[in-house]
Amino acid sequence: MPKRGLPKKIRQKLLLETIAEDPFLNDEELAERFNVSVQTIRLDRMELKLPELRERIRAVAQDSYAKVKSIDVSEIVGELVDLELDKRGISILETNNNMTFGKTKVIRGDIIFAQANSLAIATIDAKVALTGVANIKYKLPVYAGQKLVAKAEVTRVRGNKKFVFVRTYVKQKEVFRGKFILASLEDSIEAEE
Amino acid sequence: MPKRGLPKKIRQKLLLETIAEDPFLNDEELAERFNVSVQTIRLDRMELKLPELRERIRAVAQDSYAKVKSIDVSEIVGELVDLELDKRGISILETNNNMTFGKTKVIRGDIIFAQANSLAIATIDAKVALTGVANIKYKLPVYAGQKLVAKAEVTRVRGNKKFVFVRTYVKQKEVFRGKFILASLEDSIEAEE
Repeated sequence: MPKRGLPKKIRQKLLLETIAEDPFLNDEELAERFNVSVQTIRLDRMELKLPELRERIRAVAQDSYAKVKSIDVSEIVGELVDLELDKRGISILETNNNMTFGKTKVIRGDIIFAQANSLAIATIDAKVALTGVANIKYKLPVYAGQKLVAKAEVTRVRGNKKFVFVRTYVKQKEVFRGKFILASLEDSIEAEE
Repeated sequence: MPKRGLPKKIRQKLLLETIAEDPFLNDEELAERFNVSVQTIRLDRMELKLPELRERIRAVAQDSYAKVKSIDVSEIVGELVDLELDKRGISILETNNNMTFGKTKVIRGDIIFAQANSLAIATIDAKVALTGVANIKYKLPVYAGQKLVAKAEVTRVRGNKKFVFVRTYVKQKEVFRGKFILASLEDSIEAEE
């Protein structure tokens, strides 16, 4: 963790590296990580000509949505920010109070599942993809306001079955993982037994 | 499958048995099963003093909701119609077009998951219950308009971990099954690693 008082040159170099590694950190998160004010991060970004998070997302998102074949893009839970069909995909979900269980203030498990599942489907190169099996694990509770970054990877293809591994992070800590087996279908919509 | 032309006495006897076994069949489903008109089923119910499905559900539901401890009842996806804490629970979800993937007209997997997951949580005798792990299988596609009957059974308790097996049916055919491991918590809301 960098300490306050890092020379500006070094901080800006680390900032570039950090954003290259995780392009989905916003200014508040970057400020926290570098232990400086949000204003300092904004000035750094201006000097480095790095667009703000929203712009960074918009640029990659437009491209990603155009590739999706297997699902109506409006049905993807979260914002799709990267996609290479049959390889990998990334989506971001900004959580809020409407997504919590009132009793715990923890984000509902079905919301986290829906983001991962719809991302897994979007990642498949087929006109239609249905979920057959999922093994999922919730590792840490997620609270309203936290940003969920889901990363899907197609790990295996066997006939019309595609295995997709989705890991979901909050600030680069894994909070959820799910292994999905999807059936890709072109003509029929009958799932296998 | 009973054939048309069953004597009324026998049909009414079978009707009583059928509803005792599956109280969540509506008149249309009963008519189909007995190969008679919906009107005939209504007359049978009147003679037998059997309330209609909505009334049968309402009677058991009031009782069930009063028992729930682990979740705000408004957060249960579907209608809770039976509950014995730490033993079993049943919920019903009437599906509609808003719950489908537009591409396939199949009910979204996350909806079926949310019904099962929230039922599993409701079944737990604890102030708070969080989902840790779930292994789920979608067995048959579900179409808008079909009624999902989810049945949860608590199969094992180990410390604060409770194992809940949920099977979801459409017209007594299993369409989904999920094994959930929930952590019941009284004071803390930290999930285990």
